Amino acid sequence: MADLLGSMRRTHNCGVLRKEDTGKTVTLMGWAQRWRDHGGVIFIDLRDRYGVTQVVFNPEHNADVHKLADTIRSEWVIAVQGEVLERPDGMVNPKMETGEIEVMVSELKILNKSKTPPFMVEDNVEVSENLRLEYRYLDLRRPRIAKNIMLRHQVGACVRAFLNENEFLDIETPVLTKSTPEGARDYLVPSRVNTGLFYALPQSPQLFKQLLMVAGYDRYYQIVRCFRDEDLRADRQPEFTQIDLEMSFVGEEDVMGMAEQMIAKVFKEVMGKEVKTPFDRLTYKDAMDRYGLDKPDLRFGLELKEVSSIVEGSDFKVFASVVKKGGMVKAMNAKGCAHFSRKVIDDLTAFVAVYGAKGLAWIKVKEDGSWQSPIAKFFTDDEKAAMADALDMAPGDLIFFVADNIKVTNDALGHLRNRVAKELGLIDENEFRFVWVTEFPLVEYDETEKRYVALHHPFTAPMEEDLDLLESDPGAVRSRAYDMVLNGTELGGGSIRIHQPEMQEKVFNMLGLGQEEAEEKFGFLLKALAFGAPPHGGLAFGFDRLIMLLSGENSIRDIIPFPKTQKAACLLTDAPSEVAFEQLAELALRIKKDPAS
Amino acid sequence: MADLLGSMRRTHNCGVLRKEDTGKTVTLMGWAQRWRDHGGVIFIDLRDRYGVTQVVFNPEHNADVHKLADTIRSEWVIAVQGEVLERPDGMVNPKMETGEIEVMVSELKILNKSKTPPFMVEDNVEVSENLRLEYRYLDLRRPRIAKNIMLRHQVGACVRAFLNENEFLDIETPVLTKSTPEGARDYLVPSRVNTGLFYALPQSPQLFKQLLMVAGYDRYYQIVRCFRDEDLRADRQPEFTQIDLEMSFVGEEDVMGMAEQMIAKVFKEVMGKEVKTPFDRLTYKDAMDRYGLDKPDLRFGLELKEVSSIVEGSDFKVFASVVKKGGMVKAMNAKGCAHFSRKVIDDLTAFVAVYGAKGLAWIKVKEDGSWQSPIAKFFTDDEKAAMADALDMAPGDLIFFVADNIKVTNDALGHLRNRVAKELGLIDENEFRFVWVTEFPLVEYDETEKRYVALHHPFTAPMEEDLDLLESDPGAVRSRAYDMVLNGTELGGGSIRIHQPEMQEKVFNMLGLGQEEAEEKFGFLLKALAFGAPPHGGLAFGFDRLIMLLSGENSIRDIIPFPKTQKAACLLTDAPSEVAFEQLAELALRIKKDPAS
Repeated sequence: MADLLGSMRRTHNCGVLRKEDTGKTVTLMGWAQRWRDHGGVIFIDLRDRYGVTQVVFNPEHNADVHKLADTIRSEWVIAVQGEVLERPDGMVNPKMETGEIEVMVSELKILNKSKTPPFMVEDNVEVSENLRLEYRYLDLRRPRIAKNIMLRHQVGACVRAFLNENEFLDIETPVLTKSTPEGARDYLVPSRVNTGLFYALPQSPQLFKQLLMVAGYDRYYQIVRCFRDEDLRADRQPEFTQIDLEMSFVGEEDVMGMAEQMIAKVFKEVMGKEVKTPFDRLTYKDAMDRYGLDKPDLRFGLELKEVSSIVEGSDFKVFASVVKKGGMVKAMNAKGCAHFSRKVIDDLTAFVAVYGAKGLAWIKVKEDGSWQSPIAKFFTDDEKAAMADALDMAPGDLIFFVADNIKVTNDALGHLRNRVAKELGLIDENEFRFVWVTEFPLVEYDETEKRYVALHHPFTAPMEEDLDLLESDPGAVRSRAYDMVLNGTELGGGSIRIHQPEMQEKVFNMLGLGQEEAEEKFGFLLKALAFGAPPHGGLAFGFDRLIMLLSGENSIRDIIPFPKTQKAACLLTDAPSEVAFEQLAELALRIKKDPAS
Repeated sequence: MADLLGSMRRTHNCGVLRKEDTGKTVTLMGWAQRWRDHGGVIFIDLRDRYGVTQVVFNPEHNADVHKLADTIRSEWVIAVQGEVLERPDGMVNPKMETGEIEVMVSELKILNKSKTPPFMVEDNVEVSENLRLEYRYLDLRRPRIAKNIMLRHQVGACVRAFLNENEFLDIETPVLTKSTPEGARDYLVPSRVNTGLFYALPQSPQLFKQLLMVAGYDRYYQIVRCFRDEDLRADRQPEFTQIDLEMSFVGEEDVMGMAEQMIAKVFKEVMGKEVKTPFDRLTYKDAMDRYGLDKPDLRFGLELKEVSSIVEGSDFKVFASVVKKGGMVKAMNAKGCAHFSRKVIDDLTAFVAVYGAKGLAWIKVKEDGSWQSPIAKFFTDDEKAAMADALDMAPGDLIFFVADNIKVTNDALGHLRNRVAKELGLIDENEFRFVWVTEFPLVEYDETEKRYVALHHPFTAPMEEDLDLLESDPGAVRSRAYDMVLNGTELGGGSIRIHQPEMQEKVFNMLGLGQEEAEEKFGFLLKALAFGAPPHGGLAFGFDRLIMLLSGENSIRDIIPFPKTQKAACLLTDAPSEVAFEQLAELALRIKKDPAS
């Protein structure tokens, strides 16, 4: 069958030719990236996904081909056949992988023309993100974005290979399903066959993977799309991808061990980095005590210290009264930061205010060991000595204090710690520091709803050691949940699940789910647990976040092939969009824009 | 951390122990499948996903364990530790892979109890499909279904491995997207951020994969969920899975070659079957002429023959007038079927009526060569001789005729051919006969819409040889589409796409899409093609159908982990279901059940 290509077929891609290929006749196809005319000879950088090769059109070699080449413009699609030549000594380009050769073209076909692109297909171009997203197919040609998309493929393939080797089964779960209670808002899909009823898009396959364990599949995984209709933040997308897995007959160490081997394999194969396993373990309590956050960045020190017991009797009423009210006073010694200006300290005070801290007290330790501080005068010598000792104060240090309720204190100081480390250059950007955070509280009290809510989700198992607290002190019960944290970012998390229906019912009760509500929402899970559920647990990784960390990108939109804007719109296809009245009529739906009507 | 398992961990699964393992101390976990008491000794078939192992509780070996084992019931989850023993000679079970050994249990833990299941967890149980779907986690434990789900995993992994080796990139496309025009109804997702607007779930990633080619990704694939809100037939699901791929700088032979290598690899690795490549090729015209269908089953002959020219002048007015009106008369020689009774022929007449045929004429060739037939009397000796010759008539044959318009004639006889072959036992169920059907018509005339519609989709390229017919005779233009057919079932199909915007616009015009409508629906594709689209083409396989064929199952619900009913409901989770008024209010939607209000 005749077509534009005719019998022409690629012999090589644009990234593979080397000096050893000199003399070969090759056929390449790709996009004209750059076009240069040197003394009547035309040089084109021919680009495809694999690389760039310089192709040469010399009128003395072939006048017709040269003439045709003269018409080529940026981003035209061409096919060339010619001989691989070694470049002359002075012309070698060590920055290009194919920089030692060029192809002298004897045959040229123009496969397609291109309008002038609205922005250059190169990295580091100045272009608005909206224009990039509207012309995403051009944006995706830029080497940096293309590298991200290929990295994404490679990580996915590596994860699958690891899990397949370990007898995990890739099992598909429904997209049109019932609302899953992950706390966020569901995307709904109206049913036409059953008008008035709705499917929900899954926030995660949590219940299905547990049902697969009940069904005896032993080890499950899926790289799966999930959906949350949240008010969008910079790093959120309405649809995102999870590496989701679940295992039977395991405890938390089995799951954590499997997950860290998987991540170590990804780092080795994709990044060429050796990651030491097992990762460090840190209980939630230790993480909060020492770092103020449940996703601590362990690439640097600057640990926090509680000083409540030292200051609770002091004349500094702000500190003393906070402790009296059940709050805490905590401090961080920013070693060697006594040179921070008043302006810098004011900025940091504004920074902690974002996390609710009403102030940021400080002490500078002068060269002679004396203190410069607005609050120094309130403390006795004994109190001062105790603080100096607890906080390892030395000349040149700057100590920050936050006094507030426990949540605000930890939150403010935890983030301050990260910020100060960044400003002091304490962070080695090439280091990948993993840690498991374990023993999370099972529930926390929600002041608005006036009830306990699950910290992870209501299927997380409580620790056996704390079972006797389930009724007497729910907030003190630790769960069998674990989060994998890398450089201060949560990569993934999971838990051992409740596998006995009696325990699940008890936890539902604790969460204030009435029997009817529990039955309505999770009846099928309770029923399934009663038919021989094995002990099981699992984990889910944010695939997008993992790719962001591996690629070093700051925007999630740079590692998703076709992302949406912060307003959840696709600028390329113009989704969401209006639909025909008939479509809504079939669904028995009406748009009711005006809430008053 | 303490839990039910304690320090107990599986050393083996229930499918691997063999005679060579005799003497080992092992730990197994799984479900109690069968329970037998022989002379005070308890035997339990312990089942997991990998197999079944007989575990033995002997009161003389361990009285406590035996006592506990006595409480175990069907589908309870247990952990056992014990020694692998060779079974005594008479007790070997050759039907079980582990049938040469058993495990004498020294330690037993009951990990979970089970209510009595509503049906036996065994193949060949009599149980309604609705009950199976409601308790899908129990249904999924049945060995046949479990085998299907594992086959599905294996095929997916095999396909991915093949495509990864061949430099295809697994690239994710959006699920929340814009309506794609595949002819079926879209599932809609109301937007909350942009009330009154809707996303659509993709019927296929067709446009996105073409955009990825424009973006230079060269080779793309995805095993991807697709959605069609169709009126459901027995073999349809609202969500289904496609193996979707696309390649740049290729012609149809390149795509077909790649696809058949992929399928051959699946058959070899998963089924242990060698499949000969390249597959046969058959043009659409030949397929229709010889088999009446565009998905012919080539495992048997029974080819059709048109006899219009023989009978057009005959005295049999039914035949003559059909030919005069532009219809056709076609026949099939059911070799050796002259013994079919009147009742059988009546049944077949009713069968072809389903396809619109108003009658089924027939001739039986008697042992003496004479004809027994209600229509024999209408033909001259010359006409009879011509028919006998064209249809290779011999004593004992039964010839069927359909006379109608071309569509009905082919449809009726094509299906009759399949049915007769099945009844005659002409089909070797172990044969896998592949064929590519090519050169489909680009468009067909839709009598209802009074316009041409695309036979595949509007992005399919016309054959270069027929370009001059595009305006003069659209119905005669052949396309660069191809379908892979296996044993009369379409496994997948695809085409070389239009890659030049001018041609795409021309085809949109031919399909009666006004400029505004084309702009509104496909503006972004037209725009993309104008920025350097490479020649490209691809293909999509129905993953579910492939698994059905490989597993030999007749119901799509037996190879999908969590299928929906024909009414598009999930009986397990009770989806779709009602949603809260607040949820609809946020979406600015109202249910309007009564069309009159």
